[in-house]
Amino acid sequence: MPAHYECMIGPSILNSDLSVLADECQRVLDSGADYLHLDVMDGHFVPNLTFGHPVVQCLRKKIQTAFFDMHMMVADPEKWIQPMADAGANQYTFHIEATDKPKDVIRLIKEAGMKAGIGVKPKTPIDVVLPYVEEADMILVMTVEPGFGGQKFMEDMMPKVEKLRSMYQSLDIEVDGGLGPATIDMAAKAGANMIVSGSAIMKSDNQRQVINTLRTSVNEHIQRANLNR
Amino acid sequence: MPAHYECMIGPSILNSDLSVLADECQRVLDSGADYLHLDVMDGHFVPNLTFGHPVVQCLRKKIQTAFFDMHMMVADPEKWIQPMADAGANQYTFHIEATDKPKDVIRLIKEAGMKAGIGVKPKTPIDVVLPYVEEADMILVMTVEPGFGGQKFMEDMMPKVEKLRSMYQSLDIEVDGGLGPATIDMAAKAGANMIVSGSAIMKSDNQRQVINTLRTSVNEHIQRANLNR
Repeated sequence: MPAHYECMIGPSILNSDLSVLADECQRVLDSGADYLHLDVMDGHFVPNLTFGHPVVQCLRKKIQTAFFDMHMMVADPEKWIQPMADAGANQYTFHIEATDKPKDVIRLIKEAGMKAGIGVKPKTPIDVVLPYVEEADMILVMTVEPGFGGQKFMEDMMPKVEKLRSMYQSLDIEVDGGLGPATIDMAAKAGANMIVSGSAIMKSDNQRQVINTLRTSVNEHIQRANLNR
Repeated sequence: MPAHYECMIGPSILNSDLSVLADECQRVLDSGADYLHLDVMDGHFVPNLTFGHPVVQCLRKKIQTAFFDMHMMVADPEKWIQPMADAGANQYTFHIEATDKPKDVIRLIKEAGMKAGIGVKPKTPIDVVLPYVEEADMILVMTVEPGFGGQKFMEDMMPKVEKLRSMYQSLDIEVDGGLGPATIDMAAKAGANMIVSGSAIMKSDNQRQVINTLRTSVNEHIQRANLNR
Protein backbone atom coordinates (compact mmCIF):
# COMPACT_ATOMS: atom_id res chain seq x y z
CA MET A 1 0.00 0.00 0.00
CA PRO A 2 1.39 3.41 -0.97
CA ALA A 3 2.61 5.92 1.58
CA HIS A 4 0.98 9.33 1.30
CA TYR A 5 2.88 10.90 4.14
CA GLU A 6 5.99 13.02 4.34
CA CYS A 7 8.90 12.90 6.72
CA MET A 8 9.21 15.78 9.17
CA ILE A 9 11.84 16.12 11.88
CA GLY A 10 10.83 18.05 15.01
CA PRO A 11 13.52 18.55 17.62
CA SER A 12 12.34 18.65 21.22
CA ILE A 13 14.04 21.44 23.11
CA LEU A 14 13.38 19.87 26.53
CA ASN A 15 17.03 18.95 27.03
CA SER A 16 18.44 22.12 25.50
CA ASP A 17 19.53 25.28 27.32
CA LEU A 18 16.13 26.72 28.28
CA SER A 19 17.74 29.95 29.51
CA VAL A 20 18.54 30.85 25.88
CA LEU A 21 15.59 29.10 24.24
CA ALA A 22 15.33 31.37 21.20
CA ASP A 23 18.96 30.72 20.29
CA GLU A 24 18.56 26.97 20.75
CA CYS A 25 15.46 26.90 18.55
CA GLN A 26 17.06 29.00 15.83
CA ARG A 27 20.07 26.70 15.82
CA VAL A 28 18.03 23.53 15.14
CA LEU A 29 15.97 25.33 12.51
CA ASP A 30 19.17 26.47 10.81
CA SER A 31 20.31 22.83 10.92
CA GLY A 32 17.31 21.66 8.91
CA ALA A 33 14.57 20.97 11.46
CA ASP A 34 11.07 20.98 9.91
CA TYR A 35 9.24 22.08 13.04
CA LEU A 36 9.68 22.58 16.79
CA HIS A 37 8.20 20.17 19.32
CA LEU A 38 7.67 22.17 22.50
CA ASP A 39 7.09 20.22 25.73
CA VAL A 40 4.65 21.87 28.12
CA MET A 41 4.40 20.15 31.52
CA ASP A 42 2.27 21.38 34.40
CA GLY A 43 3.50 19.20 37.26
CA HIS A 44 0.12 17.49 37.48
CA PHE A 45 -0.29 15.35 34.36
CA VAL A 46 3.43 14.55 34.59
CA PRO A 47 5.84 14.99 37.52
CA ASN A 48 7.79 17.81 35.87
CA LEU A 49 7.16 21.51 35.28
CA THR A 50 8.66 23.03 32.16
CA PHE A 51 7.07 26.15 30.68
CA GLY A 52 3.80 27.59 29.45
CA HIS A 53 2.35 30.05 26.99
CA PRO A 54 4.20 33.14 28.30
CA VAL A 55 7.44 31.50 27.16
CA VAL A 56 5.90 30.45 23.83
CA GLN A 57 4.66 33.98 23.24
CA CYS A 58 8.17 35.37 23.74
CA LEU A 59 9.64 32.65 21.53
CA ARG A 60 7.18 33.40 18.73
CA LYS A 61 8.34 37.01 18.62
CA LYS A 62 11.87 35.77 17.86
CA ILE A 63 11.02 32.74 15.68
CA GLN A 64 8.32 34.01 13.41
CA THR A 65 7.75 31.34 10.79
CA ALA A 66 8.52 27.91 12.29
CA PHE A 67 5.66 25.48 13.01
CA PHE A 68 5.19 25.15 16.78
CA ASP A 69 3.85 21.73 17.80
CA MET A 70 2.83 22.11 21.45
CA HIS A 71 3.03 18.83 23.34
CA MET A 72 0.61 19.61 26.16
CA MET A 73 1.43 17.29 29.05
CA VAL A 74 -1.15 19.01 31.23
CA ALA A 75 -4.08 17.95 33.39
CA ASP A 76 -6.68 20.29 31.88
CA PRO A 77 -6.10 20.50 28.15
CA GLU A 78 -9.05 22.87 27.59
CA LYS A 79 -7.45 25.48 29.84
CA TRP A 80 -4.53 26.44 27.62
CA ILE A 81 -6.07 26.25 24.14
CA GLN A 82 -6.84 29.95 23.73
CA PRO A 83 -3.69 31.16 25.54
CA MET A 84 -1.54 28.95 23.30
CA ALA A 85 -3.35 30.07 20.14
CA ASP A 86 -2.84 33.68 21.22
CA ALA A 87 0.83 32.95 21.91
CA GLY A 88 1.33 31.78 18.32
CA ALA A 89 1.14 27.99 18.55
CA ASN A 90 0.30 26.09 15.34
CA GLN A 91 -0.64 22.70 16.69
CA TYR A 92 -1.99 21.68 20.09
CA THR A 93 -1.33 18.07 20.97
CA PHE A 94 -3.25 17.03 24.07
CA HIS A 95 -3.23 13.67 25.82
CA ILE A 96 -6.17 11.34 25.46
CA GLU A 97 -5.61 10.32 29.11
CA ALA A 98 -6.17 13.91 30.31
CA THR A 99 -9.75 14.34 29.15
CA ASP A 100 -13.01 12.47 28.91
CA LYS A 101 -14.24 14.82 26.18
CA PRO A 102 -11.69 14.51 23.38
CA LYS A 103 -14.17 15.59 20.70
CA ASP A 104 -14.84 18.85 22.54
CA VAL A 105 -11.12 19.46 22.97
CA ILE A 106 -10.47 18.87 19.26
CA ARG A 107 -13.31 21.22 18.33
CA LEU A 108 -12.00 23.97 20.63
CA ILE A 109 -8.48 23.62 19.25
CA LYS A 110 -9.73 23.96 15.68
CA GLU A 111 -11.98 26.87 16.56
CA ALA A 112 -8.89 28.58 17.99
CA GLY A 113 -7.21 28.17 14.60
CA MET A 114 -4.73 25.44 15.47
CA LYS A 115 -4.21 21.87 14.28
CA ALA A 116 -5.22 19.19 16.77
CA GLY A 117 -2.94 16.35 17.82
CA ILE A 118 -3.76 13.51 20.22
CA GLY A 119 -1.05 11.97 22.38
CA VAL A 120 -1.08 8.39 23.70
CA LYS A 121 1.00 7.29 26.68
CA PRO A 122 2.80 3.94 26.57
CA LYS A 123 0.28 2.17 28.80
CA THR A 124 -2.73 3.38 26.81
CA PRO A 125 -3.93 1.00 24.07
CA ILE A 126 -4.04 2.60 20.64
CA ASP A 127 -7.68 1.54 20.22
CA VAL A 128 -8.61 4.33 22.65
CA VAL A 129 -7.82 7.00 20.04
CA LEU A 130 -9.30 5.24 17.01
CA PRO A 131 -12.74 6.89 17.39
CA TYR A 132 -11.08 10.33 17.09
CA VAL A 133 -8.45 9.82 14.39
CA GLU A 134 -10.58 11.15 11.55
CA GLU A 135 -11.13 14.44 13.37
CA ALA A 136 -7.52 14.83 14.48
CA ASP A 137 -4.61 16.16 12.44
CA MET A 138 -1.98 13.99 14.10
CA ILE A 139 -1.58 11.09 16.50
CA LEU A 140 1.43 11.12 18.81
CA VAL A 141 2.56 7.69 19.96
CA MET A 142 4.75 8.15 23.02
CA THR A 143 7.78 5.87 22.99
CA VAL A 144 8.76 6.71 26.58
CA GLU A 145 6.71 7.68 29.65
CA PRO A 146 6.16 11.42 29.22
CA GLY A 147 7.80 13.75 31.73
CA PHE A 148 11.54 13.72 31.15
CA GLY A 149 14.06 13.73 28.32
CA GLY A 150 16.85 11.27 27.79
CA GLN A 151 14.85 8.05 28.24
CA LYS A 152 15.21 4.75 26.38
CA PHE A 153 13.09 4.12 23.26
CA MET A 154 10.31 1.55 23.81
CA GLU A 155 10.33 -0.64 20.73
CA ASP A 156 7.18 -2.41 21.93
CA MET A 157 5.17 0.71 21.04
CA MET A 158 5.78 0.07 17.33
CA PRO A 159 2.71 -2.17 16.89
CA LYS A 160 0.63 0.92 17.76
CA VAL A 161 2.27 2.85 14.93
CA GLU A 162 1.88 -0.09 12.55
CA LYS A 163 -1.80 -0.44 13.32
CA LEU A 164 -2.46 3.26 12.75
CA ARG A 165 -0.44 3.27 9.54
CA SER A 166 -2.22 0.21 8.18
CA MET A 167 -5.54 2.00 8.69
CA TYR A 168 -4.53 5.53 7.61
CA GLN A 169 -1.96 5.90 4.84
CA SER A 170 -1.85 9.69 4.91
CA LEU A 171 -2.18 10.31 8.67
CA ASP A 172 0.56 12.24 10.42
CA ILE A 173 1.93 9.84 13.04
CA GLU A 174 4.43 11.30 15.46
CA VAL A 175 6.76 9.36 17.75
CA ASP A 176 8.44 10.93 20.77
CA GLY A 177 10.97 9.49 23.19
CA GLY A 178 14.38 7.93 22.80
CA LEU A 179 14.52 8.63 19.06
CA GLY A 180 17.92 9.04 17.46
CA PRO A 181 20.13 7.44 14.81
CA ALA A 182 20.19 4.15 16.77
CA THR A 183 16.40 3.77 16.96
CA ILE A 184 14.99 5.64 13.97
CA ASP A 185 14.82 2.58 11.70
CA MET A 186 12.31 0.87 13.99
CA ALA A 187 10.02 3.91 13.99
CA ALA A 188 10.44 4.51 10.25
CA LYS A 189 9.68 0.89 9.41
CA ALA A 190 6.53 0.97 11.55
CA GLY A 191 5.30 3.98 9.55
CA ALA A 192 6.00 7.02 11.73
CA ASN A 193 6.58 10.22 9.75
CA MET A 194 6.85 13.00 12.35
CA ILE A 195 9.98 12.32 14.33
CA VAL A 196 10.57 14.04 17.63
CA SER A 197 14.15 13.80 18.79
CA GLY A 198 15.51 15.54 21.85
CA SER A 199 18.89 14.69 23.30
CA ALA A 200 20.16 13.01 20.10
CA ILE A 201 19.83 16.30 18.20
CA MET A 202 20.25 18.93 20.92
CA LYS A 203 23.36 17.40 22.46
CA SER A 204 25.07 16.71 19.11
CA ASP A 205 27.94 18.80 17.81
CA ASN A 206 26.56 18.21 14.34
CA GLN A 207 22.81 18.72 14.50
CA ARG A 208 22.47 18.82 10.72
CA GLN A 209 24.02 15.38 10.38
CA VAL A 210 21.71 13.85 12.99
CA ILE A 211 18.64 15.42 11.38
CA ASN A 212 19.74 14.15 7.97
CA THR A 213 20.28 10.63 9.32
CA LEU A 214 16.77 10.58 10.81
CA ARG A 215 15.25 11.94 7.60
CA THR A 216 17.10 9.47 5.37
CA SER A 217 15.80 6.52 7.36
CA VAL A 218 12.17 7.67 7.18
CA ASN A 219 12.41 8.51 3.48
CA GLU A 220 13.87 5.09 2.69
CA HIS A 221 10.92 3.41 4.33
CA ILE A 222 8.48 5.67 2.48
CA GLN A 223 10.14 4.76 -0.83
CA ARG A 224 10.05 1.09 0.04
CA ALA A 225 6.35 1.29 0.89
CA ASN A 226 5.67 3.00 -2.44
CA LEU A 227 7.65 0.41 -4.44
CA ASN A 228 5.58 -2.32 -2.85
CA ARG A 229 2.25 -0.98 -4.03
CA MET B 1 12.03 52.11 66.79
CA PRO B 2 15.24 51.48 64.83
CA ALA B 3 15.21 49.68 61.51
CA HIS B 4 17.49 46.66 61.36
CA TYR B 5 16.73 45.75 57.80
CA GLU B 6 18.41 46.50 54.50
CA CYS B 7 16.94 47.48 51.18
CA MET B 8 17.14 44.91 48.39
CA ILE B 9 15.71 45.28 44.91
CA GLY B 10 14.63 42.08 43.17
CA PRO B 11 13.39 42.45 39.61
CA SER B 12 10.70 40.01 38.53
CA ILE B 13 11.41 38.66 35.07
CA LEU B 14 7.79 37.65 34.43
CA ASN B 15 7.24 40.42 31.92
CA SER B 16 10.67 40.17 30.31
CA ASP B 17 11.60 38.25 27.17
CA LEU B 18 11.48 34.68 28.50
CA SER B 19 12.95 33.32 25.26
CA VAL B 20 16.29 34.91 26.20
CA LEU B 21 15.97 34.69 29.97
CA ALA B 22 19.67 34.50 30.77
CA ASP B 23 20.33 37.75 28.89
CA GLU B 24 17.41 39.50 30.58
CA CYS B 25 18.60 38.42 34.03
CA GLN B 26 22.19 39.44 33.37
CA ARG B 27 21.01 42.85 32.21
CA VAL B 28 19.11 43.65 35.43
CA LEU B 29 21.99 42.34 37.53
CA ASP B 30 24.38 44.58 35.60
CA SER B 31 21.97 47.45 36.31
CA GLY B 32 22.27 47.02 40.07
CA ALA B 33 19.62 44.42 41.02
CA ASP B 34 20.34 42.76 44.37
CA TYR B 35 18.60 39.50 43.58
CA LEU B 36 16.28 37.84 41.08
CA HIS B 37 12.62 37.16 41.88
CA LEU B 38 11.59 34.20 39.71
CA ASP B 39 7.86 33.54 39.29
CA VAL B 40 6.95 29.86 39.09
CA MET B 41 3.28 29.21 38.24
CA ASP B 42 1.78 25.77 37.73
CA GLY B 43 -1.63 26.66 36.28
CA HIS B 44 -3.35 25.29 39.37
CA PHE B 45 -2.58 27.64 42.26
CA VAL B 46 -2.84 30.53 39.79
CA PRO B 47 -4.39 30.60 36.30
CA ASN B 48 -1.05 30.98 34.51
CA LEU B 49 1.80 28.60 33.66
CA THR B 50 5.27 30.10 33.53
CA PHE B 51 8.27 27.83 34.08
CA GLY B 52 9.75 25.32 36.48
CA HIS B 53 13.03 23.95 37.76
CA PRO B 54 14.40 22.81 34.36
CA VAL B 55 14.49 26.48 33.32
CA VAL B 56 16.01 27.53 36.66
CA GLN B 57 18.68 24.85 36.32
CA CYS B 58 19.68 26.19 32.89
CA LEU B 59 19.63 29.77 34.18
CA ARG B 60 21.87 28.90 37.12
CA LYS B 61 24.54 27.58 34.74
CA LYS B 62 24.68 31.03 33.13
CA ILE B 63 24.09 33.22 36.22
CA GLN B 64 26.30 31.64 38.83
CA THR B 65 26.33 33.99 41.80
CA ALA B 66 23.00 35.87 41.94
CA PHE B 67 20.51 35.08 44.71
CA PHE B 68 17.47 33.28 43.22
CA ASP B 69 14.27 33.96 45.17
CA MET B 70 11.75 31.43 43.82
CA HIS B 71 8.18 32.67 44.12
CA MET B 72 6.36 29.34 44.05
CA MET B 73 2.80 29.98 42.95
CA VAL B 74 2.07 26.26 42.92
CA ALA B 75 -0.56 23.98 44.39
CA ASP B 76 1.81 21.49 46.05
CA PRO B 77 4.73 23.42 47.51
CA GLU B 78 6.37 20.27 48.91
CA LYS B 79 6.72 18.80 45.44
CA TRP B 80 9.33 21.18 44.02
CA ILE B 81 11.55 21.79 47.07
CA GLN B 82 14.24 19.28 46.22
CA PRO B 83 14.12 19.88 42.44
CA MET B 84 14.51 23.63 43.03
CA ALA B 85 17.36 23.13 45.51
CA ASP B 86 19.07 20.86 42.98
CA ALA B 87 18.51 23.48 40.28
CA GLY B 88 20.40 26.08 42.31
CA ALA B 89 17.63 28.10 43.99
CA ASN B 90 18.60 30.08 47.13
CA GLN B 91 15.20 30.86 48.60
CA TYR B 92 11.88 29.04 48.23
CA THR B 93 8.87 31.25 48.86
CA PHE B 94 5.68 29.19 49.09
CA HIS B 95 2.14 30.42 49.64
CA ILE B 96 0.47 29.98 52.99
CA GLU B 97 -2.80 29.34 51.10
CA ALA B 98 -1.29 26.33 49.30
CA THR B 99 -0.58 24.16 52.33
CA ASP B 100 -2.06 23.17 55.66
CA LYS B 101 1.37 22.14 56.95
CA PRO B 102 3.49 25.30 56.70
CA LYS B 103 5.88 24.16 59.46
CA ASP B 104 6.67 20.98 57.54
CA VAL B 105 7.22 22.93 54.33
CA ILE B 106 9.58 25.36 56.08
CA ARG B 107 11.52 22.45 57.59
CA LEU B 108 11.85 20.69 54.23
CA ILE B 109 13.03 23.90 52.55
CA LYS B 110 15.71 24.43 55.19
CA GLU B 111 16.77 20.79 55.09
CA ALA B 112 17.26 21.24 51.34
CA GLY B 113 19.65 24.10 52.07
CA MET B 114 17.46 27.02 51.01
CA LYS B 115 15.97 29.99 52.83
CA ALA B 116 12.22 29.81 53.43
CA GLY B 117 9.80 32.56 52.46
CA ILE B 118 6.05 32.62 53.03
CA GLY B 119 3.76 34.41 50.59
CA VAL B 120 0.36 35.94 51.51
CA LYS B 121 -2.29 36.67 48.88
CA PRO B 122 -4.28 39.94 49.12
CA LYS B 123 -7.38 38.28 50.54
CA THR B 124 -5.47 36.41 53.26
CA PRO B 125 -5.24 38.21 56.62
CA ILE B 126 -1.67 38.71 57.80
CA ASP B 127 -2.51 37.06 61.13
CA VAL B 128 -2.50 33.72 59.32
CA VAL B 129 1.30 33.83 58.93
CA LEU B 130 2.14 35.21 62.38
CA PRO B 131 2.57 31.75 63.98
CA TYR B 132 5.30 30.95 61.42
CA VAL B 133 7.23 34.22 61.12
CA GLU B 134 9.94 33.26 63.60
CA GLU B 135 10.77 30.12 61.61
CA ALA B 136 10.66 31.85 58.23
CA ASP B 137 13.39 33.92 56.58
CA MET B 138 11.03 36.24 54.76
CA ILE B 139 7.36 37.17 54.47
CA LEU B 140 6.07 38.16 51.04
CA VAL B 141 3.03 40.46 51.12
CA MET B 142 1.38 40.31 47.70
CA THR B 143 0.23 43.72 46.52
CA VAL B 144 -1.69 42.30 43.54
CA GLU B 145 -3.51 38.99 43.00
CA PRO B 146 -0.72 36.57 41.98
CA GLY B 147 -0.79 35.21 38.46
CA PHE B 148 0.09 37.99 36.05
CA GLY B 149 2.45 40.93 35.71
CA GLY B 150 1.49 44.51 35.01
CA GLN B 151 -1.26 44.88 37.63
CA LYS B 152 -2.09 47.89 39.79
CA PHE B 153 -0.52 48.22 43.25
CA MET B 154 -2.98 47.62 46.13
CA GLU B 155 -2.24 50.29 48.69
CA ASP B 156 -4.68 48.69 51.14
CA MET B 157 -2.17 45.88 51.70
CA MET B 158 0.18 48.29 53.49
CA PRO B 159 -1.38 47.72 56.94
CA LYS B 160 -0.17 44.12 56.65
CA VAL B 161 3.38 45.34 56.09
CA GLU B 162 3.08 47.87 58.92
CA LYS B 163 1.84 45.25 61.34
CA LEU B 164 4.68 42.87 60.50
CA ARG B 165 7.26 45.66 60.73
CA SER B 166 5.96 46.84 64.07
CA MET B 167 6.40 43.33 65.43
CA TYR B 168 9.69 42.41 63.71
CA GLN B 169 12.27 45.14 63.15
CA SER B 170 14.80 42.94 61.37
CA LEU B 171 12.46 40.69 59.38
CA ASP B 172 12.81 40.62 55.61
CA ILE B 173 9.44 41.80 54.28
CA GLU B 174 8.96 41.56 50.55
CA VAL B 175 6.27 43.28 48.49
CA ASP B 176 5.34 42.14 44.99
CA GLY B 177 2.92 43.63 42.50
CA GLY B 178 2.55 47.04 40.90
CA LEU B 179 5.76 48.37 42.47
CA GLY B 180 7.61 51.12 40.65
CA PRO B 181 8.70 54.73 41.12
CA ALA B 182 5.06 55.83 41.51
CA THR B 183 4.21 53.42 44.32
CA ILE B 184 7.48 52.70 46.10
CA ASP B 185 7.04 55.37 48.77
CA MET B 186 3.93 53.70 50.15
CA ALA B 187 5.71 50.35 50.48
CA ALA B 188 8.88 51.93 51.87
CA LYS B 189 6.94 53.93 54.46
CA ALA B 190 5.08 50.81 55.58
CA GLY B 191 8.41 49.09 56.22
CA ALA B 192 8.97 46.79 53.24
CA ASN B 193 12.64 46.16 52.46
CA MET B 194 12.67 43.56 49.67
CA ILE B 195 11.14 45.22 46.65
CA VAL B 196 9.98 43.12 43.72
CA SER B 197 9.40 45.17 40.60
CA GLY B 198 8.50 43.69 37.23
CA SER B 199 7.29 45.85 34.39
CA ALA B 200 8.63 49.11 35.88
CA ILE B 201 12.19 47.78 35.69
CA MET B 202 12.05 45.31 32.80
CA LYS B 203 10.27 47.65 30.38
CA SER B 204 12.43 50.67 31.20
CA ASP B 205 15.14 51.93 28.87
CA ASN B 206 17.10 52.90 31.96
CA GLN B 207 16.89 50.00 34.39
CA ARG B 208 19.64 51.37 36.60
CA GLN B 209 17.76 54.60 37.14
CA VAL B 210 14.54 52.80 38.12
CA ILE B 211 16.42 50.50 40.52
CA ASN B 212 18.18 53.51 42.08
CA THR B 213 14.87 55.35 42.52
CA LEU B 214 13.34 52.37 44.32
CA ARG B 215 16.42 51.96 46.51
CA THR B 216 16.58 55.64 47.43
CA SER B 217 12.97 55.62 48.62
CA VAL B 218 13.46 52.58 50.86
CA ASN B 219 16.74 53.89 52.26
CA GLU B 220 15.19 57.24 53.10
CA HIS B 221 12.50 55.51 55.12
CA ILE B 222 15.07 53.36 56.89
CA GLN B 223 17.07 56.50 57.83
CA ARG B 224 13.93 58.24 59.03
CA ALA B 225 13.02 55.24 61.20
CA ASN B 226 16.51 55.26 62.71
CA LEU B 227 16.45 59.01 63.43
CA ASN B 228 13.19 58.53 65.29
CA ARG B 229 14.53 56.05 67.77
